[in-house]
Amino acid sequence: MPSGTPLYMRIAADVRDLIATEQLAPHTLLPSERELAEHHGVSRMTARQSLSLLESEGLVYRNPPRGTFVAEPRVRFHVGSFSEEVARMGRRPAAEPLWAEHQVATPAVRRALGLEEGAGVHVLHRLRSVDEVPFALETTFLPADLTPGILDLPQDGSLWAVLRSRYGLDLARSTAVLESIVLDDATSAQLGVRAGSAGTLLTRTTEATGGRCVEYARDVYRADRTAFEVTEVLTSPRLTSV
Amino acid sequence: MPSGTPLYMRIAADVRDLIATEQLAPHTLLPSERELAEHHGVSRMTARQSLSLLESEGLVYRNPPRGTFVAEPRVRFHVGSFSEEVARMGRRPAAEPLWAEHQVATPAVRRALGLEEGAGVHVLHRLRSVDEVPFALETTFLPADLTPGILDLPQDGSLWAVLRSRYGLDLARSTAVLESIVLDDATSAQLGVRAGSAGTLLTRTTEATGGRCVEYARDVYRADRTAFEVTEVLTSPRLTSV
Repeated sequence: MPSGTPLYMRIAADVRDLIATEQLAPHTLLPSERELAEHHGVSRMTARQSLSLLESEGLVYRNPPRGTFVAEPRVRFHVGSFSEEVARMGRRPAAEPLWAEHQVATPAVRRALGLEEGAGVHVLHRLRSVDEVPFALETTFLPADLTPGILDLPQDGSLWAVLRSRYGLDLARSTAVLESIVLDDATSAQLGVRAGSAGTLLTRTTEATGGRCVEYARDVYRADRTAFEVTEVLTSPRLTSV
Repeated sequence: MPSGTPLYMRIAADVRDLIATEQLAPHTLLPSERELAEHHGVSRMTARQSLSLLESEGLVYRNPPRGTFVAEPRVRFHVGSFSEEVARMGRRPAAEPLWAEHQVATPAVRRALGLEEGAGVHVLHRLRSVDEVPFALETTFLPADLTPGILDLPQDGSLWAVLRSRYGLDLARSTAVLESIVLDDATSAQLGVRAGSAGTLLTRTTEATGGRCVEYARDVYRADRTAFEVTEVLTSPRLTSV
C-alpha cells in the first residue's frame, strides 16, 4: 500500500483552505514560488506544482510578471432559469439578444423536443451576463406551436417567466447534461475570456406538467466564474456494487 | 434585432445531428475542411470554424495529418457512487489505490464534514477506470471515528458499498458541485490525457440518515469521456424573475 499525500497536494490544500475560509480575499497576491518553497521547506519545483494545481482548479490566476493572485469565487448555479438563479443570489442578470429566428427543427432538436418531422421551432441566441460581466451564451429552441409571436417580444429577460406568464406553461421538470469543454475562438471572444479557456456546456430539456417538452437549450458557460450545484436523494444501490 | 444562425453553427449542427443519430460512428473520418466548404458552398474559414466548434465540444478529435474523426461518446454519470454508476451502464468499474492515510482534518475538510478541531480523517486517493481506461482521480475524506480500520481493508471497489455493509451507514443524500477545469500536468499524466485538456472537478458531500456528513470527496474526471446528468423538479420561481 502506498504512503501519504504528495507534498505539492498538501501545500495546495493549505492555500485552498485559506481561500475557502476567506483568509485570502479575491485578487490578493500569493507568496511567490520561492517564498512558498522556503516557507514549506520544499523545492521550487514542488512549490510550482502546487500553484499549477490551484491554477488548474481556477482558484488562482497568474498575472506575470506580477505574480499569482486569488481568483474571484465562482457563482454557484442550480439547474434552472439563469435569471432566477442570479436574482436569488442578489445579483443582476441580463440578456442580450444576438439573433432569433424560426427554423424547421433538425433531427436532434426534434428528438429533444419530441416533435414530428417538419415541425417548426423558435430559436433564440442570447448573451447572458451577471452584473454586466458576460457569463454564458444561450441557444434556446422552443416548439413554434406553443410559442406563437415570441420572436416579436422583448428577449432581454427570463424566458421561463415568459413561458409561464404569456404562454401559460407550468414548468415541471428540467433534465440537464453538464460537460466540461474547451472554448473555441468565437465563443471565447464573445465571453471575453482567453481562447482555450475551460467552459461548461449545459444541455437542458424542460417539461411542462403533463410531460410535454417545451424547451431545449444548449448553453455555454465560461468556467472560471461558474459552478453547478446538484443534490441527489439516494436510494439503495440500483445494482450490486463491484 | 439581428438575423439568423451563423453559417458555421448551422454546419456544426448538421454534423452534430449525424453523430447524435449514430449515422456517423465513433472514429469515422469526417469530410475535410475543403470538402465541407464545397459541399455547403461556404469558405474554408467557415468550414474550419464548424470543425473547431465541434472539437471544442469534444464531439470530434483531430489526428493530423489524417484528418478529423468522430469521438467516442461520453459516459453519462449521475451524482453518486462511481462503481454503481458504471455498473448500471453494464461496464466494468475499477479502483486502483494510490495512497491512503490518517490525517488531522484541515479547516476546509472539517467544515465539509462538520468535524471539531483536531478530529481525524481517513484520506483515500484512488485512480478510477471504466473498462481499463482511466477516468477519474478520487480523493475521499471519511471521518476517522466512523470508519475504524478502513485503511486496512481492500480499497479496490465501491467505498459506498463498504460504508453501507461494513460500517452500517445508511447514505441518504449527496450534494455535489461541478466545476469545469483545465487539467494540470500531474493530473493529465495520471489520467493519460494531454496536458491542458478539459476536466471536471466534482466536490461532493454525502449525508447519512440523521444528517451526519459521512463523506467528503474531491474527484477530478477527464472531460473527454464523461458527462453528468441532473434532473431538477421545478417549483414556482423563488423570486420574481428579472
